[in-house]
Amino acid sequence: MVLSLNRRSDIHGILIQVPLPPQVERRVVLDAVLPEKDVDGFHPVNVGRLVAGTASLKPCTPAGIMQIFKRYHIPLVGQRAVVIGRSDIVGKPVALLLLHEDVTVTICHSKTPDLSGVAREADILIAAMGKPAFLDDSFVKPGATVIDVGVNRLESLDKIREIFGVDSPRLDEHARKGYTLVGDIHSASVFPRASYLTPVPGGVGPLTIAMLMANTVRAAASVAGVAVFSDGGTASRL
Amino acid sequence: MVLSLNRRSDIHGILIQVPLPPQVERRVVLDAVLPEKDVDGFHPVNVGRLVAGTASLKPCTPAGIMQIFKRYHIPLVGQRAVVIGRSDIVGKPVALLLLHEDVTVTICHSKTPDLSGVAREADILIAAMGKPAFLDDSFVKPGATVIDVGVNRLESLDKIREIFGVDSPRLDEHARKGYTLVGDIHSASVFPRASYLTPVPGGVGPLTIAMLMANTVRAAASVAGVAVFSDGGTASRL
Repeated sequence: MVLSLNRRSDIHGILIQVPLPPQVERRVVLDAVLPEKDVDGFHPVNVGRLVAGTASLKPCTPAGIMQIFKRYHIPLVGQRAVVIGRSDIVGKPVALLLLHEDVTVTICHSKTPDLSGVAREADILIAAMGKPAFLDDSFVKPGATVIDVGVNRLESLDKIREIFGVDSPRLDEHARKGYTLVGDIHSASVFPRASYLTPVPGGVGPLTIAMLMANTVRAAASVAGVAVFSDGGTASRL
Repeated sequence: MVLSLNRRSDIHGILIQVPLPPQVERRVVLDAVLPEKDVDGFHPVNVGRLVAGTASLKPCTPAGIMQIFKRYHIPLVGQRAVVIGRSDIVGKPVALLLLHEDVTVTICHSKTPDLSGVAREADILIAAMGKPAFLDDSFVKPGATVIDVGVNRLESLDKIREIFGVDSPRLDEHARKGYTLVGDIHSASVFPRASYLTPVPGGVGPLTIAMLMANTVRAAASVAGVAVFSDGGTASRL
């Protein structure tokens, strides 16, 4: 299936929707996608190029995060970033992209002692751990830029009231759907302390989709031999 | 040339000796090596697998550094490492290998402000910047493990005397060869403060060569369908 899509000249981008059924080997399917059509940027060749700083198809969520810094003119050179979470999809690639922008990068994870102490070193804090509202202001240096990549379903009414307040529209949402989406950041606690804080939902998520579209255009343009310039904020040439 | 070596079944490992002449595109030649024969671990596919933690052919210097930790039973889980230098050959890959061993890793570089302050956070300090004896004890936390990856030709007699003392055999070496090799660490200054300090020469360098041989055996065994176990200290199965 993937191989036939690889061969079709009218297909420029292929995305494997994970998780796959348990009987299917995830790695084998992902690696089967032609690197030039790998709009997720997950193929080893594209990951390898990401490390070298030569990737044209970058993973979408990290690329979206970088767009936030560019569009909001948040300085990167010489800043310290702390990335919490070391996934192949977010933590590791965003650390590499930041490194290439002259940021001093620390990657933390479940085995990091004194996480709050390390996190407070960050001018730029990127939360990608998957623990609802886990990080409060004790993890945040005053004035830091905080990027919340977590997307967690929160079902506890008490917890929703605690995070969003007793008169939040989130309670109506809970009444309708039985849950609300919350990031890794305790937004009420962190908001007064941070310079910037991305919302969940509506922060990094939509940018991931936008970057997927950008990668698809890139992949198509590359086949067509066309140079594409992104609009405004970035100067990335394909 | 590379392509014909790729095809030969009696050739299991191919190493491109860099730097290449200026008229040859380095990236094109490196990428031409079959990933299964890429004993340097520099091919994008192998770098991508390194990020994912699934690489069998890992870059030799970082792999050699990891052997030091294993053979000397230096604990890694929950430790903080600071890597100074972000090259594709040492800095980035060793940071990834440490991350996979549950180390909290910070990568520093020429644009890092307060380098000594950041370096002093390190339980494990890896110097791979290429500045002779640049890092003195002000960069080292007492008791840290210090890995000196730098290999610099030092020609100044005054500097050699300052680093190694006025009666060092290094002065005889300078008289014979006109230089001596020195790492990025100011060894006389750091030695009393560190738990471990690798010498230059004779520290990481020989391990790089050993890992190159190990990769070549791995590549050959993989073609032959043979499982190889490394001796003693490591339990890496191919």
